[in-house]
Amino acid sequence: MLQRLKERVCRANIALKTEGLITLTWGNVSELDRATGYVAIKPSGVSYDALTPDDIVIVDLNGNKIEGDLAPSSDTPTHLELYRRFPSIGGITHTHSRFATIFAQCGRSIPALGTTHADAFYGDVPCTRPMTSEEIFSDYELETGRVIAELFTDETAAHIPAVLVHSHGPFTWGRDGIGSVENAIILEEVAAMAWHTLMMTPDKTFQGELLDKHYLRKHGANAYYGQKETKR
Amino acid sequence: MLQRLKERVCRANIALKTEGLITLTWGNVSELDRATGYVAIKPSGVSYDALTPDDIVIVDLNGNKIEGDLAPSSDTPTHLELYRRFPSIGGITHTHSRFATIFAQCGRSIPALGTTHADAFYGDVPCTRPMTSEEIFSDYELETGRVIAELFTDETAAHIPAVLVHSHGPFTWGRDGIGSVENAIILEEVAAMAWHTLMMTPDKTFQGELLDKHYLRKHGANAYYGQKETKR
Amino acid sequence: MLQRLKERVCRANIALKTEGLITLTWGNVSELDRATGYVAIKPSGVSYDALTPDDIVIVDLNGNKIEGDLAPSSDTPTHLELYRRFPSIGGITHTHSRFATIFAQCGRSIPALGTTHADAFYGDVPCTRPMTSEEIFSDYELETGRVIAELFTDETAAHIPAVLVHSHGPFTWGRDGIGSVENAIILEEVAAMAWHTLMMTPDKTFQGELLDKHYLRKHGANAYYGQKETKR
Amino acid sequence: MLQRLKERVCRANIALKTEGLITLTWGNVSELDRATGYVAIKPSGVSYDALTPDDIVIVDLNGNKIEGDLAPSSDTPTHLELYRRFPSIGGITHTHSRFATIFAQCGRSIPALGTTHADAFYGDVPCTRPMTSEEIFSDYELETGRVIAELFTDETAAHIPAVLVHSHGPFTWGRDGIGSVENAIILEEVAAMAWHTLMMTPDKTFQGELLDKHYLRKHGANAYYGQKETKR
Repeated sequence: MLQRLKERVCRANIALKTEGLITLTWGNVSELDRATGYVAIKPSGVSYDALTPDDIVIVDLNGNKIEGDLAPSSDTPTHLELYRRFPSIGGITHTHSRFATIFAQCGRSIPALGTTHADAFYGDVPCTRPMTSEEIFSDYELETGRVIAELFTDETAAHIPAVLVHSHGPFTWGRDGIGSVENAIILEEVAAMAWHTLMMTPDKTFQGELLDKHYLRKHGANAYYGQKETKR
Repeated sequence: MLQRLKERVCRANIALKTEGLITLTWGNVSELDRATGYVAIKPSGVSYDALTPDDIVIVDLNGNKIEGDLAPSSDTPTHLELYRRFPSIGGITHTHSRFATIFAQCGRSIPALGTTHADAFYGDVPCTRPMTSEEIFSDYELETGRVIAELFTDETAAHIPAVLVHSHGPFTWGRDGIGSVENAIILEEVAAMAWHTLMMTPDKTFQGELLDKHYLRKHGANAYYGQKETKR
Repeated sequence: MLQRLKERVCRANIALKTEGLITLTWGNVSELDRATGYVAIKPSGVSYDALTPDDIVIVDLNGNKIEGDLAPSSDTPTHLELYRRFPSIGGITHTHSRFATIFAQCGRSIPALGTTHADAFYGDVPCTRPMTSEEIFSDYELETGRVIAELFTDETAAHIPAVLVHSHGPFTWGRDGIGSVENAIILEEVAAMAWHTLMMTPDKTFQGELLDKHYLRKHGANAYYGQKETKR
Repeated sequence: MLQRLKERVCRANIALKTEGLITLTWGNVSELDRATGYVAIKPSGVSYDALTPDDIVIVDLNGNKIEGDLAPSSDTPTHLELYRRFPSIGGITHTHSRFATIFAQCGRSIPALGTTHADAFYGDVPCTRPMTSEEIFSDYELETGRVIAELFTDETAAHIPAVLVHSHGPFTWGRDGIGSVENAIILEEVAAMAWHTLMMTPDKTFQGELLDKHYLRKHGANAYYGQKETKR
């Protein structure tokens, strides 16, 4: 069932590794099938080198396993909470990529400091509040989704498709699995640039007009970046 | 038409990716054909992995499309302004390479701090002034070319073939497309060295005699670096 | 004799190189065969490119060579001291990986600053005290094992499978050779993240509850990360 | 003539590129043939990708070209001065590798801060004094060799086979060409570690006993690192 979805999610997970965002088995990509409401996600702790479409696990939005021999990623409840809360999201990626994780460990948002950031994220990428002991020791992965959801509406989630979980690392999302992987790639590069910018110029800020211009020329109603019909 | 030009520009764009200066589709190379006055440039938002010579777009110096099925890079008006203003330029590269972009985000020129810089750039690589709201919200990409042009004469453009656009990233140029890619590679390495030098020694300066010596032994009238006739 | 052990140790050493933790010949992996009490270890100063299972040297826990034409790693007495002191250890890796070595050169422990660290190490990765002149100029490699052993009990060694030797570099251990290599990979990434976190936020600390939660969900009695039966 | 020497020098130059120490054509390796007193060196400005043994240029110790169609590296007079002054040197490498060059740009020696450094260099790697205008505008490359030579005797050159030329970059040497390349690899890694160590702990120093111990166990009269007879 959903063979094509599993192939796509497998490829998206492997792309994460190829792009250098993954150490060992840290990270996972999921994708929502809107027709069935099912989610395909990487199995927990499985090596990327050996991953095949048959390993991908299918769950419903309440976390019931629909198909698959393996246990789904332990982060599955976080993914599901985000799908439930934000209908515009079609795919989610979680990594421990180096510079995004460094900002998460600092408990700092990644400020928009240039057009590279503005081309993808319409504002600072926020960092969640620290979780309470209750949240950590009850349904931790579900509560992780909830502290993320505190920071977004469905509309802002569409325009800033990334978040840092405090002391943990980044989650990104997009139109589908590979779209969320692309946002994970961008987030890591933007985080690396922001770290080095802030080390050299700690109080750096950014021109609001450039944030508008660059985000909207790519994602606004009158976007003119990229190809119209023959988008590749 | 201009098949060889399109092949060269395609190869130059792919070299940019191979050299590690490109994340996703960020960046583009163009080259001017002096016989026709036409410019070949990368299409907008197209993946480097799939790029073929037939995808390369041909425009004239006023931005009219002469050939090609795809839309040219959204940065095309910036390239064209530089070709119009500086006759010595035969190729232009734009990237978001990490360290050059970090200096652009800091709004700082890249100071000449060693012979690595002096071998390619005869002085600091300047950063443009911030653009005004009017410039950003009218013909943004054309105005970007204009704020660059404020900083150079045709002669200084020949000796410092690179610039940082404030809060954005680098443009480099050269005798042709691949020449501008080489300058983009050098600029990124020089920026990385400068960042680390300044973090360790914030007030570092450089000996003017070494700047003269290294630039001129490679690019001066009596240059003796490299091969004379059999240049490879 | 112990052909399979030698093959595994050869593969583990080569993995160290492939993962980018090794410059030239710096580093070595050993594994203990519990049935015989023998240890297989890399020969000293041999290139990773040419390493074959037949090059692997077998020694007993007192350092007597049992098999092999080559001299074992000069660090062998350090490995053996750790095997003798901590029965839970089945494999040991030593590297000069960049960021772990930087913390060792600073004489600083790597503080737990995020869940990436907590997923593998149940607390700070400690740095040994400086060695005395007597220790350095007597049985240096044996004494290196002893200053490491001062910092651990067999139980804490099981939960924090890594150490920094002051002014030198990291040792990691695990259930077997490849397990110790995995911990060396994790340690390097965690050290890189910690260095950048501390440069941006020098007084950063970490939430104890998250340390407990992440370490125990992966390594505790009720661990639920990864696959149960079909662990791959 | 000297076909094997040219093959070795070609391989050593290519190794420099493979190891990631080279951007574009920056850098060169030479080797001295003690029987003839001739030196084989990379031609100037030639791409590493296309380099063949026939491209390698042979010069005598006074800089007269003995064989080869191409012009030798513009740094040839620096190499020759070092061969003339220090009989123990059999091969020389010059690079602009990133972190070694950063220390050169800072005008700082690379301090010995750990055993990684001590395994190869018996003390700080010194930085030359700035050159005078007269030195820069007369025989610049020869004078570069002379300011290096001010810092060493033949004995200290044997124990610290590396130097930083102020505002320029590193030269390393060794028993032959490939030996000097290995020291260039080590120097770059040691420089990277030192930079990060000093950024975190600016006043860091190192234990003299460890410097002695590590240098001498590898290079002293009673060295016991590596293989005795079957050195590979």
